Amino acid sequence: MPKIDLDAIPQTNATGYPPIYAGEVQGRLYRRLAPSAGLVDFGVSHVTLQPGAWSGQRHWHEGEDEFVVMVVGEAVLVDDHGRTPLKAGDCIAYPKGDANGHHIVNETAEDVVFVVVGAASKSACHYPDINLLLDGPSQTFCRKDGTHF
Amino acid sequence: MPKIDLDAIPQTNATGYPPIYAGEVQGRLYRRLAPSAGLVDFGVSHVTLQPGAWSGQRHWHEGEDEFVVMVVGEAVLVDDHGRTPLKAGDCIAYPKGDANGHHIVNETAEDVVFVVVGAASKSACHYPDINLLLDGPSQTFCRKDGTHF
Repeated sequence: MPKIDLDAIPQTNATGYPPIYAGEVQGRLYRRLAPSAGLVDFGVSHVTLQPGAWSGQRHWHEGEDEFVVMVVGEAVLVDDHGRTPLKAGDCIAYPKGDANGHHIVNETAEDVVFVVVGAASKSACHYPDINLLLDGPSQTFCRKDGTHF
Repeated sequence: MPKIDLDAIPQTNATGYPPIYAGEVQGRLYRRLAPSAGLVDFGVSHVTLQPGAWSGQRHWHEGEDEFVVMVVGEAVLVDDHGRTPLKAGDCIAYPKGDANGHHIVNETAEDVVFVVVGAASKSACHYPDINLLLDGPSQTFCRKDGTHF
């Protein structure tokens, strides 16, 4: 059915971050919607942030547009401009190559739900606050000097 | 600011449908979010359906994946499988080439809001219920026999 049965899609908190940076996304539970729905033009993730969880380490993509729509709860968007409160219905966009590191954090005692859209690319992802880099061609995480964890 | 100021983006009910098929989308107010946000990988529209309005004539795209997330209100998804109730948080996906004509209709007395994502393509769009075709290469509307209105 074209209405997606979210409960039928496994939810995971898997992350490729090295353990030193993985604690903040332990409570980030996500479902990848595009594969089961047969979408190929772009990816879609349905994300639940449990209390205290982050959407990811603050980051920006060299080659991938990002769009988020908030669905449930209240969160805070953190980027180079500071902190912006978010509530259900708010829309957020970061164009590729905009070196404005960003993430969404749940500082409340309730779950936050959002949907994020991006078109897959083999581009680098930069993490301004920590010694982490997603290498573009290999799509593996390394330190900023290129050494692996 | 990467949180999109929806109020700053003009809302329109413009349609390219010929007048005979345009009545049902008179109460469909939308904002195109990608251009002002600088997104190019895919398009995003923030859509309000006033009471009685349709998201569009029932249709399917030959070459464009579609994804919708419901944000506010209750609506009905109509497709070849029948009628499916929709509420805030529901996600809907139609992969390109799936000849399952679909649209969302607001049969309530309150506004419905959803966000729809699609990657622009010069592909045909088919309308199973009416004598309408969106021609792929020209992206203009015509009758199914190719004649123009």
